[in-house]
Amino acid sequence: MGSSTVSSSKLLFRQLFEKDSSTYTYLLADISHPDRSALLIDPVDKTVDRDLSLIKDLGLKLIYAMNTHVHADHVTGTGLIKSKVPSAKSVISKASGSKADLLIVPGDKIQIGNLFLEVRATPGHTLGCVTYVTGGGPDQPHPKMAFTGDALLIRGCGRTDFQGGSSEQLYKSVHSQIFTLPKETLIYPAHDYRGFTVSTVGEEMQYNPRLTKDEETYKSIMQNLNLPYPKMIDIAVPANMVCGLQDLTSKSS
Amino acid sequence: MGSSTVSSSKLLFRQLFEKDSSTYTYLLADISHPDRSALLIDPVDKTVDRDLSLIKDLGLKLIYAMNTHVHADHVTGTGLIKSKVPSAKSVISKASGSKADLLIVPGDKIQIGNLFLEVRATPGHTLGCVTYVTGGGPDQPHPKMAFTGDALLIRGCGRTDFQGGSSEQLYKSVHSQIFTLPKETLIYPAHDYRGFTVSTVGEEMQYNPRLTKDEETYKSIMQNLNLPYPKMIDIAVPANMVCGLQDLTSKSS
Repeated sequence: MGSSTVSSSKLLFRQLFEKDSSTYTYLLADISHPDRSALLIDPVDKTVDRDLSLIKDLGLKLIYAMNTHVHADHVTGTGLIKSKVPSAKSVISKASGSKADLLIVPGDKIQIGNLFLEVRATPGHTLGCVTYVTGGGPDQPHPKMAFTGDALLIRGCGRTDFQGGSSEQLYKSVHSQIFTLPKETLIYPAHDYRGFTVSTVGEEMQYNPRLTKDEETYKSIMQNLNLPYPKMIDIAVPANMVCGLQDLTSKSS
Repeated sequence: MGSSTVSSSKLLFRQLFEKDSSTYTYLLADISHPDRSALLIDPVDKTVDRDLSLIKDLGLKLIYAMNTHVHADHVTGTGLIKSKVPSAKSVISKASGSKADLLIVPGDKIQIGNLFLEVRATPGHTLGCVTYVTGGGPDQPHPKMAFTGDALLIRGCGRTDFQGGSSEQLYKSVHSQIFTLPKETLIYPAHDYRGFTVSTVGEEMQYNPRLTKDEETYKSIMQNLNLPYPKMIDIAVPANMVCGLQDLTSKSS
């Protein structure tokens, strides 16, 4: 098992939690670069002020406000962030069918200072899910860090019964795009409901109760979860297709 | 500001969250040592099974179940852990007046494999509060990590109106025992209520809204918090004086 600590002289990294939806937002910045460029992954509308206040305290410049996918359980903070930090650009996958400043595709690199994230397509929870992985090379974080959204959760995975979800596709995504990363790669998911903050590829390959199964067993598990209808989906998804901006007038007033 | 990432080839580190009391439990282990010795700081009774399951998955051997102080808002997991892992030793400060296997005093070193924590007395939230700080030396984690309990919280601090608390004492503790650590030292508190997971000494010296004030202003802030009576205190404190064991018969049945 990896050491679950990251060695990098460049990276400032913060994991932030939104309690109502159990969402993790991630702040990454290159503090070795004079610009002190930063990005946020999966910010939540409710905690935008907290996140921007921290960015200000740390003397960072927010460049990108990114989503791993169109969330169904909370409204993204990316639109609200843009209204407060006009120079920041919203980012989501082209495959999501959403509006954003930057529509990324697999293989794209997202650069902050001398650090970068690579985009991997990991559909199955939604058709547009991506995983952001820190880049390779001696000057990049070691071990790698993978921001998996809802594709791979710690000892779990996202549901596959809405938003173009497919258990077959999610199984393939995780096995081909995440489990092929070095075993010590740190897994940072979009949610955790039991208080875990991080895992590793090696740990999930060994202990994930769903994704360690063969594909047919996995599909059967996912078909029989009997989860309730997602209570925020009808509000969150239309809003999140436009960076949460549908809600902006009521929230910022 | 520090990079908020820790460089160590030895340390396995996990931060774990208990939602009801917003408590952080910390798992540290030396994975370079063949014994794979581990310790838990501030485990919560409700999440003991989660913590022990993780320790098992990671192939670690739990040596110490430690508290930073006698908690008033939740029941410690140390007693329950000992009933499930008889070889583990409970640890708390001698100054707390509590029962435990190991009653530590300032300057003590707590060793797991080749890693160690140093004990600093940081009374003021309670009379027996300590801060555990990772040791110095080239083979220890860099930057240092300080587990501050409720003495220093991220942009806050523990209340000082119960359990032998004293705002004067807490002010002195933080300034003499925590703010004297290197500025890049990572602050890992026992709680956070807004979703922050970590801070640094430098950040709190600059932005803590209470402890950046002069002592008289600080004491006045603490005297005028008008906090409600702690709702768990009458259950939690007597239980925590004996490692949570008062509750054990009902909880383990």
